[in-house]
This record gives sequence, structure tokens and C-alpha cells, in this order.
Amino acid sequence: MRNIRLLIAYDGTDFHGWQRQPNLPTIQACLESAIEKIVAERVTLYGSGRTDAGVHALNQVANFKTAGNIPPANFLKALNKLLPSTIRVKSVEDVEESFHSRYDARAKTYRYRILWAPISSPFTGRYVHHYPYPLDPKAMAAGARHLEGEHDFTSFAGSAGAVHEPPLQPSDDRGNNVRTIFASRILWRPRTSILIYEVRGNGFLHHMVRNIVGTLLEVGRGKLAPQDVLKIFKARDRTRAGPTAPASGLCLVRVEY
Amino acid sequence: MRNIRLLIAYDGTDFHGWQRQPNLPTIQACLESAIEKIVAERVTLYGSGRTDAGVHALNQVANFKTAGNIPPANFLKALNKLLPSTIRVKSVEDVEESFHSRYDARAKTYRYRILWAPISSPFTGRYVHHYPYPLDPKAMAAGARHLEGEHDFTSFAGSAGAVHEPPLQPSDDRGNNVRTIFASRILWRPRTSILIYEVRGNGFLHHMVRNIVGTLLEVGRGKLAPQDVLKIFKARDRTRAGPTAPASGLCLVRVEY
Repeated sequence: MRNIRLLIAYDGTDFHGWQRQPNLPTIQACLESAIEKIVAERVTLYGSGRTDAGVHALNQVANFKTAGNIPPANFLKALNKLLPSTIRVKSVEDVEESFHSRYDARAKTYRYRILWAPISSPFTGRYVHHYPYPLDPKAMAAGARHLEGEHDFTSFAGSAGAVHEPPLQPSDDRGNNVRTIFASRILWRPRTSILIYEVRGNGFLHHMVRNIVGTLLEVGRGKLAPQDVLKIFKARDRTRAGPTAPASGLCLVRVEY
Repeated sequence: MRNIRLLIAYDGTDFHGWQRQPNLPTIQACLESAIEKIVAERVTLYGSGRTDAGVHALNQVANFKTAGNIPPANFLKALNKLLPSTIRVKSVEDVEESFHSRYDARAKTYRYRILWAPISSPFTGRYVHHYPYPLDPKAMAAGARHLEGEHDFTSFAGSAGAVHEPPLQPSDDRGNNVRTIFASRILWRPRTSILIYEVRGNGFLHHMVRNIVGTLLEVGRGKLAPQDVLKIFKARDRTRAGPTAPASGLCLVRVEY
């Protein structure tokens, strides 16, 4: 069997997330159905992780096994012809049979884009969270740095009963909600009014990045101090962190193997 | 009567152009209906010029007269609440009664964005023309420069019988299809795969920028030489120029007074 790895970009606005669901448009279902048309067999596509409804990806990675013998370049063209224009396969390559998009991932990077301006944009609305109120980007940057390291992220987890992704490497699993954040930064580009939160880690709980952003916005508007982020970790209590920021601003930008 | 000037950005994808038309969504109609809800009187909005179906604007200018006494800041907020998110009013200001968005305009700048890459983007599809074939940007730049100056643009006009906008200043009208182009440039940003054609002039015929881009693409792919642009002018024959490039890539970026 061949093992084929895809690099995928998508605009998540019109999809109910990555994961296949009955009777709902999802990225995985669209890709699987396009692949099945080409290889004429049933296929299961493994993504590096799920993205929620409305979340985007610049470089999602996924793999599937097939007995088909179509060359990668032809596969790429055929896939993009069958897919909606909001999903693009950027590359197709044969990889060794043991490769698994999720278990072999070492790190993932997400970017959250905030349009910090009085008036929203007709062009970027689908890809940002518009925030028209006063903010202190320096306080947000300081709060963001407190997230780096290995922590129990229970306070930043989606909601009670939500199913979380395990850490990317099962061997690192020292507790349900413990994840390691390698970098957590605010990148502010005043000229474009775009404030970016970028986070790179070994795994993320359900809604974790959006809950972090919601919390950093509370820091930015002065409702929380940057060092409150540390107290929120210790509390292991979802109600202590900020609200979940909207999906539109979030994008999976890189998966490292 | 007050004379109020608006600065407007819009994503033209879902509209049938700027100009009001019966039973079709247009930018002018959306704006007029929002303004009328606020001032509770009939209003005519004068744009700096029409944009075609699917064409965007970063800074369109329009003005209207009203007896209403709402302060500009409140007007701005109320308008953006009533408008669809694909149209944003960026500023509202009182101007002298003689100001006219179209007749007082000295120059307009359009930008046409070509995504020159093998695979299209799920994010910028609405705002670019995707061109996946070989191109010579230097030849295109040379061809673009030949357009600068005062010329009869008949060869680049929409089609026989089309109604063209007159030049911005009526006193400059030395012939139906004569326009002056102040700057005509290719801006190529290899890192982003975005090739931009930027043109600044005192007026544009119907489809003129898109016909110029279609012609420059013929130059870019070697079907025309850069200096052929000069021969096309002289021919005054629409069939000599290239095809009309798609509306999605075009954006009105600036109107100068």
C-alpha cells in the first residue's frame, strides 16, 4: 500500500470543522470524497488534528493509504479540480508507510489574527476577529509569555465534558490536560491594524487557543493583569479564564514532524 | 443643505457593481437605502465613478446632500450598523456645498492583483485573478510603461456601444476616448506570488483597466511584445488588444481631489 501525505489550505468559514460528521460539510469529508473519486476505493484520511467549525488552515497535514498508482503530480491536479475553491491541496507526496499525520507530529503552530481598528474590513472579515475597543498590546505580550512551558491547561479547556485531543506524542502524556507550549507571542503590526497571537506547542486542548486569546484580550483591556495568567493555570478552573474568542481569527499555520 | 462626503470600502463580489439598478443588489443602492433610513428623506448618492460587477474598492468616494443634522461620527456608526459587512464606510465628513465626488476628482488609482502561482488560494480567491501559467514580469512592466501619457484608448474600451465614463474633468475632453495615464506600473512581489498592475489616470473607459491587464498578460506570455502596446493604441481597434481580465482582481484604491 502507498501512504500519501497531503499539505492542505482551507477557509473554514463554510465548514463544520475538519472532522467528518453525518450530513454536514466538513473538510475531511470533502477531501475523502474527492480522493475516493480518484482512487475508486474507500479511503480514511488522517489529519494532524481536528480544527473547529470556522477555523482555517494554511498548512494542515493529512495522510491516507491507497493501492492506487496515480503519480503525485496528477493526484494534485485531479484533487484540486474536484475540491471546492475554499479547499486547496498544496502538495501530494509519497511517504514511508509508517508515517502518521497525528502521532508523528512534534509541534503545531496556530495564529490568531485580531483586526484592532475602529471599523471592520470588507476583505478580511472571514479571517480575523474584529476588536474595536482600546487594548494594551504590551500587557498582552507579557501575559502571552507566561503561557510558555509545560502546564496543566484545564483552565483553558473548552468546557466540561468536551473531548480533547491527546498530546501529539502519547509518550509525553503525563496527565490529561498537560501540554507544552514552546512559544507564545503577540506580534503587533500597527501599520496593518492586525494584532497576531502566535502559539507553538506539542498539542492543544479543545478551544484552548481561542480561550487563551479571550484571556489575553481581558489582559489587553485591563480586566486582568499579565501575571493573572499564572493564577489561572493554578486554579485549574475554566471559569477563571476569559471567554472563547471567535473561530474566524484562528488559523493552523504549521505542523512539524 | 449639508453636503456629506463618504469614504467607502467594499468587496464587490456579491454586487452588480456600483450603480443602482432595478431589483439587483448594487453598492449605490445599499448605501442610499441605509442613508435614507437614517435621514428619513430621499437621497441621491454621487460616486466618483462606477465600478463594474465584482470589482472592489478600498477607498471609493461619494457624496450626498441632506437637510438632516446628525453629527458625522454618529452617521458613521449608524451607517455601518445598517450596511452588510461587505460594505464599510470608513469616514463621514461635511464638505463645502460645491464639492462633487465625480467632477472634482483629479485622478484615480486602480490596482489589479494577479495570483501568479501553480495553485490558487482559498483565502484570496475573491480578490485576485489566479494565473498559473509562465509569465515574464519584466516584459509586462515594459509594456505597462508604454501606456503612460495621453492616448486614445479606443482599443482598450469595453465593447462597441458601451457607455464610457467621461474624463473626470470635462474641460480636458479632447475626444471621446482620450484619457491621460499618469503612471502605469507592474509591482511584483515574488515572496507572495502576487503580481500587481497599478494605474493612475484622469479617467478610465468601461473595462479599460481589465482590457489593459488582459493585454499585459498577452505580453507576459510572449504572445505580444511590449512595444506592440503602442501599435494597439494607433489601431483604435478593440480586437487588437487582449481579452478582458476577470473583475475579481480589480480594486479602486484611491481617488484624488
